[in-house]
Amino acid sequence: MKKDYIFTPGPTPVPPAVSLAQVRMIHHRSDEFGLLLARVLDGLKYVFQTENDVLLFTSSGTGAMEGAVANCFSAGDRVAVFNGGKFGERFVEITRYFGLDVINLEYEWGDSADPAALDKVLSENADLKGVFLTHSETSTGVVNDVETFGRMVAETPALLVVDTISGLGAAPFRTDAWNVDIAVSGSQKALMTPPGLAFAAVSDKAWEAADSAALPSYYFSFKEARKSQSKTPPQTPYTPAITLVQALDEALKMVRAEGLEHIQERHRLFSRATRAAVEALGLELFAKDLPTAVVATSVVSPAGVNSGDLVRLMRTEFGVFIAGGQGKAKGKIFRMGHVGFFDPFDITTQVAALELALLRLGCPVDIGAGVTAALGVLASG
Amino acid sequence: MKKDYIFTPGPTPVPPAVSLAQVRMIHHRSDEFGLLLARVLDGLKYVFQTENDVLLFTSSGTGAMEGAVANCFSAGDRVAVFNGGKFGERFVEITRYFGLDVINLEYEWGDSADPAALDKVLSENADLKGVFLTHSETSTGVVNDVETFGRMVAETPALLVVDTISGLGAAPFRTDAWNVDIAVSGSQKALMTPPGLAFAAVSDKAWEAADSAALPSYYFSFKEARKSQSKTPPQTPYTPAITLVQALDEALKMVRAEGLEHIQERHRLFSRATRAAVEALGLELFAKDLPTAVVATSVVSPAGVNSGDLVRLMRTEFGVFIAGGQGKAKGKIFRMGHVGFFDPFDITTQVAALELALLRLGCPVDIGAGVTAALGVLASG
Repeated sequence: MKKDYIFTPGPTPVPPAVSLAQVRMIHHRSDEFGLLLARVLDGLKYVFQTENDVLLFTSSGTGAMEGAVANCFSAGDRVAVFNGGKFGERFVEITRYFGLDVINLEYEWGDSADPAALDKVLSENADLKGVFLTHSETSTGVVNDVETFGRMVAETPALLVVDTISGLGAAPFRTDAWNVDIAVSGSQKALMTPPGLAFAAVSDKAWEAADSAALPSYYFSFKEARKSQSKTPPQTPYTPAITLVQALDEALKMVRAEGLEHIQERHRLFSRATRAAVEALGLELFAKDLPTAVVATSVVSPAGVNSGDLVRLMRTEFGVFIAGGQGKAKGKIFRMGHVGFFDPFDITTQVAALELALLRLGCPVDIGAGVTAALGVLASG
Repeated sequence: MKKDYIFTPGPTPVPPAVSLAQVRMIHHRSDEFGLLLARVLDGLKYVFQTENDVLLFTSSGTGAMEGAVANCFSAGDRVAVFNGGKFGERFVEITRYFGLDVINLEYEWGDSADPAALDKVLSENADLKGVFLTHSETSTGVVNDVETFGRMVAETPALLVVDTISGLGAAPFRTDAWNVDIAVSGSQKALMTPPGLAFAAVSDKAWEAADSAALPSYYFSFKEARKSQSKTPPQTPYTPAITLVQALDEALKMVRAEGLEHIQERHRLFSRATRAAVEALGLELFAKDLPTAVVATSVVSPAGVNSGDLVRLMRTEFGVFIAGGQGKAKGKIFRMGHVGFFDPFDITTQVAALELALLRLGCPVDIGAGVTAALGVLASG
């Protein structure tokens, strides 16, 4: 008997009620769907903590990242991209792809984006049009200090564009209060919904920039999305992934019921428990800024063990899906997810499987030490 | 007691096994998903009748339409768009949006695209880079003669781009044999899957054009999609709508089991039965080229009846969803769908609801005449 446990930092476990909401399909031009979409857009505003429009697209999160670039910038615009992982790299790639003049601010994988570097780039580039930041860098587990970045960028004409695909909901994120101009997210992380929906919260400052932007974006047109969503009842410009929107509606009901603050507290607790387990097992943590890494705990693979082998073993032998390293961290780290629909026993199960796998790979393991440490944290809340 | 019947020409009814395939979610970087995606891509080749790559995107069909334009053309390219309905208009809009030099070949809604017009435009424009055609124009029900267009365009350097979003599977469509360079489709019509996945079958001639094309398309990049899909096992560049891909896998198994020829014969039979019912009720058919209109039967609303009122009444009173007119046909026609997961009793139910609704609206109706005529056709096969 082997069960499947999706403990990767995305896609993440989907609650049964959310899964089942996909089974029926209502027509997207019906009153019922209009009401549902209105409720979903309202729920997204709550999650994003914004009074502005949150646009919904049928796509991966990357689609909304492209939308942010193509709708609000023009070729030649000077922008700074903070790049400390695979998703920072993606913003570098997209902005370069569209011909922006990109300052690639690389920082060490596992480190946080440095406000001092922002200060420097802002002071040296009065013409800076945008700052791109990853809230939760899923490839390393690091959660960046969006609030400080927002305060600094708000004093300039530049837009702050934040990828909060894995961070939204799990880590504190206040779009309006933190002056985030475009916040991009997706359905498949803390929102506990299968992948296929992407979102963009857009500030007035970003809408103004959109008026003079000159890059093409048809499917991901922010203006078209806003126009359709402004109708009564709201619509989407093109046929949406109806069953996923239904699923998201269920998930957002759960988010409202638990409340963002409690959800974020739960994420902090589970990441503390996971870190305690990893340390009790004598393993080295990869991300430097530990307390904020609430989406995933990245761990350096034990000496002589390729993390890919560890991840594969956990999948094939125990049905437990954790993630390996991506890009330059491939083979070197593994990532234990705890974002979204997780309870205490998902944490202990994940740690238990890790212990068994390490043993199989011939690593020295004090069996039970990780689980005990995790339980200790969980017990004390 | 009121049940819901989705009889619109998209989204279309979803078989229970397909709906239920969304409930579980496997990880998209697992071997299991790799095998599933390989099977799906293979099934799509069968449905498209092509040996070339069929690219899969998480988006509405419109996303793949944009991809066709942005990946294989450049600003200033002279192209001809056959435009006889809402989806022909969409191709005009997208090609213009990207700065192509568009010859808008409008023809009457309800008519077919005319090969003589193609002959003229080809002979007058030696530099023509592309011809855009709608296979099944969902807004009118007309199915165009792609085979003849393909034969003519193949003799020129131009690419033939065909929107077969509602046509694929329902009406004969042979991508390779008919020399279609880019065929674009979606999950939510004859493929009996919820909306959210789009496809593009791309010929060698189109790939060559892509090498010199100069429009930006990041998320819908054909080359990136091909690169990921060429891996063993195949992947997608970005997190796909996993649960929809699982659903599509189930649907494609059903398509294989029934066989394309039988499916298309069934669509012809159901459209004949629907037409017979409409005529028996003394209503006027809207599309001129009747025998090919296998996706939807478009009907002129009876004198004094706004088709929107009729559609609304059928929804609210009987739970039967048919479609009204779009764009310039709004209020004037209604469209009875019969594409995808339909059986004979979906046809008689749809006609029965139409009879009851017409009666409620005070139209003269010989109750039972439509159902009887439809059954007569269905009985004789």
